[in-house]
Amino acid sequence: MSKRVAGPEIEKLIQLLSKLPGLGPRSARRAALHLIKKRDQLLAPLAAAAADACEKVVICPVCGNADTVDPCTVCRDPRRDRHILLVVEDISDLWALERAGAANCLYHVLGGTLSPLDGIGPEDLNIRSLVDRVISGTGDSEVREVIIAVNATVEGQTTAHYIADQLAGTNVKVSRLAHGVPVGGELDYLDEGTLSAAIRSRSVF
Amino acid sequence: MSKRVAGPEIEKLIQLLSKLPGLGPRSARRAALHLIKKRDQLLAPLAAAAADACEKVVICPVCGNADTVDPCTVCRDPRRDRHILLVVEDISDLWALERAGAANCLYHVLGGTLSPLDGIGPEDLNIRSLVDRVISGTGDSEVREVIIAVNATVEGQTTAHYIADQLAGTNVKVSRLAHGVPVGGELDYLDEGTLSAAIRSRSVF
Repeated sequence: MSKRVAGPEIEKLIQLLSKLPGLGPRSARRAALHLIKKRDQLLAPLAAAAADACEKVVICPVCGNADTVDPCTVCRDPRRDRHILLVVEDISDLWALERAGAANCLYHVLGGTLSPLDGIGPEDLNIRSLVDRVISGTGDSEVREVIIAVNATVEGQTTAHYIADQLAGTNVKVSRLAHGVPVGGELDYLDEGTLSAAIRSRSVF
Repeated sequence: MSKRVAGPEIEKLIQLLSKLPGLGPRSARRAALHLIKKRDQLLAPLAAAAADACEKVVICPVCGNADTVDPCTVCRDPRRDRHILLVVEDISDLWALERAGAANCLYHVLGGTLSPLDGIGPEDLNIRSLVDRVISGTGDSEVREVIIAVNATVEGQTTAHYIADQLAGTNVKVSRLAHGVPVGGELDYLDEGTLSAAIRSRSVF
């Protein structure tokens, strides 16, 4: 333990910053110093923005997205196709898909994947609410397709199959993301599973 | 420009976090989401700590360190050797030396290096105050040695020579950091300048 250089308020700031993903103890110290040096341009606005977000953030009761309006910006967007639900593991996946502009539909955030080893069962995820949303939707909010966009991991795929089973009794079309060669990817660096999937799902030129 | 996923408060938080060193736009988004998910454990304390630091941070009028007490924790530490001043470019250097426990003396932060190309002259740095501190110190606060611990860059060394010149008329001993092989370093990866310096400054086994 080195000697304390700065007062407890600064040490507290460093300690909290070091808990952010992407910042370790050393870069948190650098970030704190950067904030302190730019007190008026950065530290004060950050304090205000953090307090503001803290006060206003709500988890959307419809889809599970984090936003400051209820329902969230995505759910209330009138230009979206409300008949398609994209099921994702985490809010970060929703944000990634939106950033890519990959879809123009509604979402449903599961909040994780099934993982018996970690004690995470169906009741710990937003699966019940997904099924309810599919069953109860009528007219404009009728769900016609559920795209399961979970990660291509063992847990993700297990979860996908479980959800597909739960939706089997409904009239809804259940689909999943295509497997294949990532755009810009080189075959030489890809694993056998991806290559086999890309061959199986080949398309006509 | 992708569609907005979250409300303006969240976007503002992401935008400010992306200005921290070590965080880009993408990792700032991940950091913001992490904060939002841990609202009570992380976002609220961070908002409070940032506001607290913002309100209390002062630049020490004696040495130039950033702290929440005036004079700073280092300057008011009674166990330090008050006869030695370690001159550094930046507060981050002071913090790095303290983290290493490398010295147990007082500091003087220059706030940069001489850089005529960038229009930074002696009057833009805390050099005048350093000379004053050396001249005016008597009794317990008499300065006996000034260790110039600036970066081993061209600007750093130019600044070091300028400071040494300014202190030439005083009775104080002026020293600088040793050049040599970094501890744990491999000779094969070191530049010629470092190797030559390490040979020149060799010590008896």
